[in-house]
Amino acid sequence: MQTSRLEAFSDAVFAIAITVLVLGLHVPGVGDGDLGHALVDEWPSFASYLVSFVVIGIIWVNHHAVLDHVTEASRTLLFLNLLLLLWVTFIPFPTAVLAEHLRTGSDESLAAAIYSGTMALMGMSFGGMWLYIVRAGLLGPGIAPEQIRAITISFIAGNPFYWLAIGISFVSAPVTLAIIAALALYYLIAGRGGGMPSPRRAPEQR
Amino acid sequence: MQTSRLEAFSDAVFAIAITVLVLGLHVPGVGDGDLGHALVDEWPSFASYLVSFVVIGIIWVNHHAVLDHVTEASRTLLFLNLLLLLWVTFIPFPTAVLAEHLRTGSDESLAAAIYSGTMALMGMSFGGMWLYIVRAGLLGPGIAPEQIRAITISFIAGNPFYWLAIGISFVSAPVTLAIIAALALYYLIAGRGGGMPSPRRAPEQR
Amino acid sequence: MQTSRLEAFSDAVFAIAITVLVLGLHVPGVGDGDLGHALVDEWPSFASYLVSFVVIGIIWVNHHAVLDHVTEASRTLLFLNLLLLLWVTFIPFPTAVLAEHLRTGSDESLAAAIYSGTMALMGMSFGGMWLYIVRAGLLGPGIAPEQIRAITISFIAGNPFYWLAIGISFVSAPVTLAIIAALALYYLIAGRGGGMPSPRRAPEQR
Amino acid sequence: MQTSRLEAFSDAVFAIAITVLVLGLHVPGVGDGDLGHALVDEWPSFASYLVSFVVIGIIWVNHHAVLDHVTEASRTLLFLNLLLLLWVTFIPFPTAVLAEHLRTGSDESLAAAIYSGTMALMGMSFGGMWLYIVRAGLLGPGIAPEQIRAITISFIAGNPFYWLAIGISFVSAPVTLAIIAALALYYLIAGRGGGMPSPRRAPEQR
Repeated sequence: MQTSRLEAFSDAVFAIAITVLVLGLHVPGVGDGDLGHALVDEWPSFASYLVSFVVIGIIWVNHHAVLDHVTEASRTLLFLNLLLLLWVTFIPFPTAVLAEHLRTGSDESLAAAIYSGTMALMGMSFGGMWLYIVRAGLLGPGIAPEQIRAITISFIAGNPFYWLAIGISFVSAPVTLAIIAALALYYLIAGRGGGMPSPRRAPEQR
Repeated sequence: MQTSRLEAFSDAVFAIAITVLVLGLHVPGVGDGDLGHALVDEWPSFASYLVSFVVIGIIWVNHHAVLDHVTEASRTLLFLNLLLLLWVTFIPFPTAVLAEHLRTGSDESLAAAIYSGTMALMGMSFGGMWLYIVRAGLLGPGIAPEQIRAITISFIAGNPFYWLAIGISFVSAPVTLAIIAALALYYLIAGRGGGMPSPRRAPEQR
Repeated sequence: MQTSRLEAFSDAVFAIAITVLVLGLHVPGVGDGDLGHALVDEWPSFASYLVSFVVIGIIWVNHHAVLDHVTEASRTLLFLNLLLLLWVTFIPFPTAVLAEHLRTGSDESLAAAIYSGTMALMGMSFGGMWLYIVRAGLLGPGIAPEQIRAITISFIAGNPFYWLAIGISFVSAPVTLAIIAALALYYLIAGRGGGMPSPRRAPEQR
Repeated sequence: MQTSRLEAFSDAVFAIAITVLVLGLHVPGVGDGDLGHALVDEWPSFASYLVSFVVIGIIWVNHHAVLDHVTEASRTLLFLNLLLLLWVTFIPFPTAVLAEHLRTGSDESLAAAIYSGTMALMGMSFGGMWLYIVRAGLLGPGIAPEQIRAITISFIAGNPFYWLAIGISFVSAPVTLAIIAALALYYLIAGRGGGMPSPRRAPEQR
């Protein structure tokens, strides 16, 4: 199977997941009192919405950067990609759970642990997919060995921070959210600099 | 009509159906008591979410594997494909019904029968579409007669198990869910091995 | 602008509209009593879901058949297409309104009139788009004048039946639903036979 | 990265955002009394639905017109585009908030300010993306300097009206909605006339 199919399906899933996040935001009505106060009280919804949006957006960018170097999609890659998409499509749920419990202040540690745990599983799935791509020899000739190594290191380097975020959940849920946001920015920079391959320029390729 | 259109539309429907499943999950609030217990009580939601995700994901993969060998989309194929998509888009409903009734323990037999019945109708629609493709001569030259026969057998072989799953519903709803999951894994392996054609490698094709 | 863009965007909108219909179905819970009776009572939801699914599906097919003969997308075409998509994306709303009022039996005439009125506006928008395409000379050479005339007639011929359906709403809402379903089947056959152009076979075109 | 990827992802997000708007419409039930009155009372929902639909539709058209002239997508462009999409996916929320508060008449100034503020941020993000494209030299040779200047002016010209709309919110919320609608029509005409580049005709390009 050509990767264009895989990418088109993944793109659609990323696009839908990033767009349905908004459906998890509670629209304040008359029963919620003053609109200004209601929206301020909902800051955790907006904060977790924003972090989840950024996480999905950056994974989308890096997903493309990786798949641009894959020349053929094996059946195993399809299923590893589905596993990654499972966590991506699941994100609106822990996002809503975290927002609800940050707002009410009850069980926010567990909610933050579920949120960061989902992110950790997504990160591990993405990393595992990358390791499979490298080992199965699915990469094209356009990527240098040192670049491959740099990407592998960037995937491995992020892992302890996800686990740290889970642990921190039981100390402070907002700090957990901040760590996840920082990790997203790390992958943004890692992708730009040495880590993720800069997407090659090949107008005739598609 | 070229199949690329048909595939793009189907891809989008598969992608949306697999992503809106998450909207069926109930976000526990303060009124649901302790978050940990609330989530454990919701295990049927997560189990049916997961099974439905896997079913849609594998049908997507096999849908592509089949259509990669179809060289032209007739109007009849468009409508048989719409019939298949009808069941795919419907899946979130029986998934939510099953989750709700597994959780409360009321009418779970009927809920499981509706869930497995939807899967049976989807499987039959997919099988019927395949038989039409073969008989209408829409397959390209890149697929061998023995491969065609193997796929036909794999479609027919799955059918009794769907009906078994419907029957088992009235004995045990969780076992029904397990059978549907096992059938998905069967089609995953059937697709990988002899059954579904391994998608051909043709980078210049799209 | 090339029509491929227009088609890709329209495809996505059709795919999403056809998939979010399911979110309008009410999932019966414990409070709704016996699941079997609750689902039987919900027959109007399933009936209107099915009719709306078929309508969107057939419009998608005919939309493609028409645009396959358009060689260039003018800005005016983009906006006429957006007007058509406005009605397509709106369909889940009158579908849910009709289902709710057929179920409870209150104000079902008005609900059916709104439903068939939306369909009438959609049909008129599609017909208007077709007339614009013909008059602006956007059709390629692959379509014969008699075929163009046949399509124009099929668009005009459907109109009185939409208005009939609106009128019938005030006599019987279920009959209105049946007329809309019959009209969809008419456009299915009109598209297959003389009316809609049979999509040309041009594998190198995309 | 080629812009085709960026466009496909953006298209999907625009298509989903424009389609999920309908999920924010409240389906009147038996408890809402007479259907006719209930729908008339909901006019703000329909008005804000329509304005948001038109805004997203026109931004989609102009987004394409701009990106058609971009020959290469830099990583910075990807993230500026994600920022634009953040506001696009967010639109259903302020749309629902405005509809709810226009309907009940409470806090409608703040609701209108949030709605027009979102539109202003979206307009600024789009304008900022355009300025980046120009300065980073990502435009292809098919666009004349005077056309570039006209687009830049049209982006800058819209800004004060967004801020005016925010200010007017505290005088009259419906007028704010009307200004946003007028701005959308302005960009429709600006795009058609001198402003936005008319999408070039290049069938072999994709």
